[in-house]
Amino acid sequence: MRVADIRVQLEAGKVGRDMHQLVTQLYPICRSITGDGVRETLRQIGQQIPLSVHEVASGTPVFDWTVPKEWNIRDAYIKDSSGKRVVDFKRSNLHVVNYSVPVHRTMSLEELKPHLHTLPDYPDWIPYRASYYQETWGFCLSHRQFAELAAGEYEVCVDSSLEDGHLTYGECYLPGETSDEVLFSSHVCHPSLCNDNLSGISLAVFLAKYLQSATHRYSYRFLFAPTTIGSITWLAKNETRTERIKQGLVLACAGDAGRMTYKKSRRGNADVDRAVAHVFKHAGGDFEINDFSPWGYDERQFCSPGFNLPMGCLMRTPNGRFPEYHTSADNLEFVRAEHLEDSYRKCLAILDVLENNRVYVNQSPKCEPRLGKRGLYAGLGSRAQVARHELGLLWVLNFSDGDHDLLGIAEKSGLEFSTVREAADALCQHHLLELRPN
Amino acid sequence: MRVADIRVQLEAGKVGRDMHQLVTQLYPICRSITGDGVRETLRQIGQQIPLSVHEVASGTPVFDWTVPKEWNIRDAYIKDSSGKRVVDFKRSNLHVVNYSVPVHRTMSLEELKPHLHTLPDYPDWIPYRASYYQETWGFCLSHRQFAELAAGEYEVCVDSSLEDGHLTYGECYLPGETSDEVLFSSHVCHPSLCNDNLSGISLAVFLAKYLQSATHRYSYRFLFAPTTIGSITWLAKNETRTERIKQGLVLACAGDAGRMTYKKSRRGNADVDRAVAHVFKHAGGDFEINDFSPWGYDERQFCSPGFNLPMGCLMRTPNGRFPEYHTSADNLEFVRAEHLEDSYRKCLAILDVLENNRVYVNQSPKCEPRLGKRGLYAGLGSRAQVARHELGLLWVLNFSDGDHDLLGIAEKSGLEFSTVREAADALCQHHLLELRPN
Amino acid sequence: MRVADIRVQLEAGKVGRDMHQLVTQLYPICRSITGDGVRETLRQIGQQIPLSVHEVASGTPVFDWTVPKEWNIRDAYIKDSSGKRVVDFKRSNLHVVNYSVPVHRTMSLEELKPHLHTLPDYPDWIPYRASYYQETWGFCLSHRQFAELAAGEYEVCVDSSLEDGHLTYGECYLPGETSDEVLFSSHVCHPSLCNDNLSGISLAVFLAKYLQSATHRYSYRFLFAPTTIGSITWLAKNETRTERIKQGLVLACAGDAGRMTYKKSRRGNADVDRAVAHVFKHAGGDFEINDFSPWGYDERQFCSPGFNLPMGCLMRTPNGRFPEYHTSADNLEFVRAEHLEDSYRKCLAILDVLENNRVYVNQSPKCEPRLGKRGLYAGLGSRAQVARHELGLLWVLNFSDGDHDLLGIAEKSGLEFSTVREAADALCQHHLLELRPN
Repeated sequence: MRVADIRVQLEAGKVGRDMHQLVTQLYPICRSITGDGVRETLRQIGQQIPLSVHEVASGTPVFDWTVPKEWNIRDAYIKDSSGKRVVDFKRSNLHVVNYSVPVHRTMSLEELKPHLHTLPDYPDWIPYRASYYQETWGFCLSHRQFAELAAGEYEVCVDSSLEDGHLTYGECYLPGETSDEVLFSSHVCHPSLCNDNLSGISLAVFLAKYLQSATHRYSYRFLFAPTTIGSITWLAKNETRTERIKQGLVLACAGDAGRMTYKKSRRGNADVDRAVAHVFKHAGGDFEINDFSPWGYDERQFCSPGFNLPMGCLMRTPNGRFPEYHTSADNLEFVRAEHLEDSYRKCLAILDVLENNRVYVNQSPKCEPRLGKRGLYAGLGSRAQVARHELGLLWVLNFSDGDHDLLGIAEKSGLEFSTVREAADALCQHHLLELRPN
Repeated sequence: MRVADIRVQLEAGKVGRDMHQLVTQLYPICRSITGDGVRETLRQIGQQIPLSVHEVASGTPVFDWTVPKEWNIRDAYIKDSSGKRVVDFKRSNLHVVNYSVPVHRTMSLEELKPHLHTLPDYPDWIPYRASYYQETWGFCLSHRQFAELAAGEYEVCVDSSLEDGHLTYGECYLPGETSDEVLFSSHVCHPSLCNDNLSGISLAVFLAKYLQSATHRYSYRFLFAPTTIGSITWLAKNETRTERIKQGLVLACAGDAGRMTYKKSRRGNADVDRAVAHVFKHAGGDFEINDFSPWGYDERQFCSPGFNLPMGCLMRTPNGRFPEYHTSADNLEFVRAEHLEDSYRKCLAILDVLENNRVYVNQSPKCEPRLGKRGLYAGLGSRAQVARHELGLLWVLNFSDGDHDLLGIAEKSGLEFSTVREAADALCQHHLLELRPN
Repeated sequence: MRVADIRVQLEAGKVGRDMHQLVTQLYPICRSITGDGVRETLRQIGQQIPLSVHEVASGTPVFDWTVPKEWNIRDAYIKDSSGKRVVDFKRSNLHVVNYSVPVHRTMSLEELKPHLHTLPDYPDWIPYRASYYQETWGFCLSHRQFAELAAGEYEVCVDSSLEDGHLTYGECYLPGETSDEVLFSSHVCHPSLCNDNLSGISLAVFLAKYLQSATHRYSYRFLFAPTTIGSITWLAKNETRTERIKQGLVLACAGDAGRMTYKKSRRGNADVDRAVAHVFKHAGGDFEINDFSPWGYDERQFCSPGFNLPMGCLMRTPNGRFPEYHTSADNLEFVRAEHLEDSYRKCLAILDVLENNRVYVNQSPKCEPRLGKRGLYAGLGSRAQVARHELGLLWVLNFSDGDHDLLGIAEKSGLEFSTVREAADALCQHHLLELRPN
């Protein structure tokens, strides 16, 4: 079954609930850019879709970078003088600055304070902090907790390890009719944060599940890797294969209530840029499309000038533009099934465009062919009632000159891609259209 | 006398009255895509301008189409049980569905009803319907007439013939200084409907009359043919000659009170597209310019991808956008002399641009030449008072670099084409400018 | 010291006062397109900056023109019957039509009137008039003076000479690291008029003074010549050298209170056009940018199609758009130190762009290089707080692909040029960037 055909059969609500369930399942795991949290996350993803897991040793040079030491953590807390855990990693893995080095000491509140991070503007929220490349330790806590800390001595413990080990990433590869690839990338390095980026992981998993059940022209690769160092490592390991990548999307922040946002590839007019713009425009709701900029998620690496891959970044509310971003408020309530499902459906519509966007050549290019005698439309000819379908036929015939792809015809005509695709299908059946030879 | 010179001498009102007179004269004829109505129309046009009439036999293959059987009609009516003609072709030729096959039967009102067409929203108007490629018959009547039909038996008669014969079209060819052609096309297949398209026919006839009295660079061809099958037949018969066509306009709906509308050629930036846009912009009134779309009038055929001719469509209110369209209300009152004349004058301004739009080369390109010593402008030099004419001289000199045509200079400067053309003429007289060699 | 570095050290107010002082000093001199007024002006400019003065003999052919006779004037007046000077050149050199031929006669008021020019709408202002190429004489006076002239006889005297002599212009050439040139041009032919163009002269002089104290990549040429015939003469004498000119600005009307205005070069997208647009946009205030048009100041000559130099015209309120233009109200009060200084500072910002706008190539183009380990930014990685400087680094790295110059990166990113330039400097120091070889 083709990508285009399967998506109309979705049961409303079901996939959104399943996506949210996966978010819920992965939520408690303490992920980082390396370590067992990533491994456990990939193991659970591998229960949903075929996944190959790769381990790259600490110290491996990857372009200008080096794979870092592996970080693992078992426990962490701050105990007051009565021995009570006033900050406890077991209650929230955000309480520890990600990549904190081991520490076990007693110290005064004054000594401790430089290691404590809070959000005075949101006194109930725990911030998320990480320090991958500067060896330090710290705790994050709500400002309310912080305010209650009495002067005195505290026992501080981070029971972590930072040692030679591996960086771990996973790939799901779904071969298609051609070796041309569509790459989806979702970062898997954030601990208990839902929109950023369990939502993107869940979206990628469910797209992969969908594609397993469809025939598809492109081969698809889903990458689950830690941000920055993960995509850099993947690119270093797959440098020569990147030329197969014809389309791509970084998926992140896909479950909040905000409008859809797309950040274009560095090229700015790649097929995927045009496809997303088309789908957003015809979907009816509000949306935002931004030019490429060299910060954000892993499109920074994929679109670095030495690669310049045709990959954009698909989000709802972008990173840093919702107050819950990188705090404990980015939780299971912030991300909702209906928004996850909406993101998913838009991705399927994008896939429909990418899969079916071809260049055809009109086989009867001199004057219009007679559509009526082929039953392509009725003969009682008041032109005022030319229907949408018939417009599709005329547009496709007129602009299938070998220079315009179907998406270009949809853009020019204002018609939705599916209308244009259906017209092309009908015209192909009557041999009025043929695929342009490469 | 040049196109540019003659048009300023027009007597206001006269040509509009003459154009409306021609519309009035042709109004009663029952035209269709074939048959004696077209022949009679062409005979009367031939009394105004030199016209060669072509007959193409039924069954002749023309690209994907076949020339249809010829249709003629002598009479048609619906008689009630008292023998009274309640619907009578002799009162309005719109009463019969165009291309109705012969019928002569008595039938009940219930049997008859599926063959009757009305406009409930405009109960006094008779709709216009045709069925060229599906053999059927029918009557059109006002909804008021329809409502008065009592139950009972009716005698129904269409005294028509649909037999092998010919498709007829006419051409007026006016040779110019070069064999490069401007093609005007007007459809002649509609019965008693004025704006669509006796207005276009009349406009074409009067443009041809005008050009007969002027010298012109281009050769002009005026095509009077039935829509769709007529233009397809003409293109099939003239396929190799189409490369001479450098400019063209489909003329239709040229007599209503609406603003001017232009639909661009498929190319979108042909000289004729630029010329029309320029003339509309400087004419002062409201106007509308639309991109090409593959439906409408015969530009569908001329701009099919195998021809892609530089032809747009000039109208006032476009087909389907006025309620009188394809009804008996598109009559001699709906089309008015003043609107016909306005369309005519705009066409002459467009011809002025097309005829005189040349590329010149400044013969004194280093610094400005001294215009004052050639009497090209006065020497008392307050620059604040540089007049329009002098601006024209400076713009033409500066941009006559071999890359800009005069229309391009008019577009860039915001000056009207005639200002720029007059400046070029003056500079040529002083040998400061020469035509760019081809 | 580089152009970029010196300009931040300017003492506010000082240069504006100095510029106004130079305007004041040059104000009384009666300049014209030839003669001793220009010579005296150039002599005083030569006291500020190194200046070579050129004399070109009357009658010398310069392209389509001829160097005119030299005009000098000693005195001029109109005396009433009591012998009182009712109009006196010694009170304002605007009182005589510039280039008036000698006359000394007695005549009636009626005979005199055709030689008198006033501004009825501004009855206190004396207009400025010139008649270079039509030999005549005349007086300009306020309309109030004119109204008071009683009937009777008047003694009229213009003690001038119009004889073979020379046209005079001055050049200040400041060699830089390359022979590529930036040309500044200011006209020196107007008598006691401040904004037009003592302001432009003063701006040019102070830019030259500034550049003398800086190291610079470009060589700079400042041309002080009469308008039209002066620039034409210079171009005729330097025809083969014009290909060195890579950037240029005509400077005029630089001291009034209006917003900055820039008229683009004929090319429309020359570096200087982009640089000025960038500086205006980031300067914060209101401004206006216009397309090239072939009238105005000497850009008419520099941008004639045979030269088409990349030169625009920088002004505050353009010529002809302030009522004081070409009247005695364009005086020392109309031009103010603060506006002169503002024009000067904007020119320095433009020079900063022109001097430092280079194309670099990222030496680590595959993925982002690790900036943190080079101390280029801090490691505690909340992306939400990426600072302006860090954005500059990322933008420069990503778009230094050999196709984008720094100004292009500034335009794309929305960052100010100085931010981008500083980022490029820092990246060069760490060998992450290198100048693109030519």
